[in-house]
Amino acid sequence: MHPLDQALARQPQGEGIFAGRTHPAWANMVGPFGGITAAQLLQAACLDPRRLGEPLALTVNYGAAVADGPFDIVAVPARTNRSTQHWTLELRQGGQVCTTASAVFALRRATWSAPELPMPSVPPADQVPPETRGPRVEWPRRYQFRFVEGGWPDYRNPREEPDSRTVLWVRDEPPRPLDAPALAAIADVFYPRIFRRRGTVTPAGTVSITTYFHADAAAFAAQADRPVLAVATGRRFTQGFFDQTAELWSDDGHLLASSHQIVYFKE
Amino acid sequence: MHPLDQALARQPQGEGIFAGRTHPAWANMVGPFGGITAAQLLQAACLDPRRLGEPLALTVNYGAAVADGPFDIVAVPARTNRSTQHWTLELRQGGQVCTTASAVFALRRATWSAPELPMPSVPPADQVPPETRGPRVEWPRRYQFRFVEGGWPDYRNPREEPDSRTVLWVRDEPPRPLDAPALAAIADVFYPRIFRRRGTVTPAGTVSITTYFHADAAAFAAQADRPVLAVATGRRFTQGFFDQTAELWSDDGHLLASSHQIVYFKE
Repeated sequence: MHPLDQALARQPQGEGIFAGRTHPAWANMVGPFGGITAAQLLQAACLDPRRLGEPLALTVNYGAAVADGPFDIVAVPARTNRSTQHWTLELRQGGQVCTTASAVFALRRATWSAPELPMPSVPPADQVPPETRGPRVEWPRRYQFRFVEGGWPDYRNPREEPDSRTVLWVRDEPPRPLDAPALAAIADVFYPRIFRRRGTVTPAGTVSITTYFHADAAAFAAQADRPVLAVATGRRFTQGFFDQTAELWSDDGHLLASSHQIVYFKE
Repeated sequence: MHPLDQALARQPQGEGIFAGRTHPAWANMVGPFGGITAAQLLQAACLDPRRLGEPLALTVNYGAAVADGPFDIVAVPARTNRSTQHWTLELRQGGQVCTTASAVFALRRATWSAPELPMPSVPPADQVPPETRGPRVEWPRRYQFRFVEGGWPDYRNPREEPDSRTVLWVRDEPPRPLDAPALAAIADVFYPRIFRRRGTVTPAGTVSITTYFHADAAAFAAQADRPVLAVATGRRFTQGFFDQTAELWSDDGHLLASSHQIVYFKE
């Protein structure tokens, strides 16, 4: 079983309650990789028999690091309309809320459609060498990173940068067909933008992430297990927090999702 | 009393419950302006005696139009940490959830700080004439709009546009000192980007909006009641939904907030 599917596996415990547990393959510095928690919360709503439609929006608020071990996700369909369904979600451990989230699902239908943001012009994934270095935590080994621009900083030769932009091709490692929970996790694969601006590591972590999905089931099927192009840039760093905006593109040039986050940093 | 303060006024009904009501000054096509609902939800947490710190992030999910009349907002501090506090919020009418939201508050402190996104180069507000036209709904009269680029489309001469960018100076009308609830409302003042791309009006409405605040109390005090520069652009329009990203700038060039939304449109 793929490590992502292992992490997404859970036992229903009654309506709207899913028992899961952290998975060592997704460990971060403190607690699990935020992307896997986002994927688990989305998956809890996706697997609920009351769920209607496909993922449209996901917001995850990281209240506290999830401790290694079991957790419960409580999923409530707060409002169901003709074309959208609004869920509220909580990840709990030992009676305490660690993470809150909301998810919107939608029935998509044919309408006037058009791109606006252009895809960056980059070499195809197979012409960009896979990164072989990586931070000393486990979760990055669950991805193949091919950095076009803004790779891991070289912390032995710290250098401030005027921008925090990163562009990379990325896919699950080993390869796995893309779906909304996988893409929700990929939306968080960017190392903290503050590391790039300052050239040094400082304690940092996502406080809240929001991802909007444009991809429907057909778009996920078309993308299959090939790398997506992921782009992230910081906007302003001030008083211990910065915001970041990101885009995730199919390899044939469609915006699959846009994602935004606000991130804590220490100094 | 300023119409924004009238709309933000509410009676506490016990811990975490605030009774409010829709205000005719903020009426939209169906239900109130989404921005005022966002401001009311944020305000419910801001006024709660358990609240710690300043607004950092706000996500509002519009499940259903709020009907004219009274509503309750239920505000729950789901998790309180040393430097952040996570709230979940619901706006209810007649036992049904209309709107769900989450808000994060933070203790800001001095750290390394830097801008990254540059402010667009535009003429100062007093050199841009105030817009005199407007849609036939009430809420836009609560703002002074000075469009630098991408003003209200001329629906009598419909014209498709290659982009959906709007840049404007905007402030409350009459003027009012800026604060986080006011800025949360301003984050939603952009008419739907689909109107601009297509040159025609189609039923459209925000499904979910997320705003990240960089401004602290000192920044709000410095901005006072002068116009902020507001910039919005769509990213992709497909299958009945589009996403939009926006920035709100102080007139001395600081990013006060970034805001993102996903919007439903009919055809």
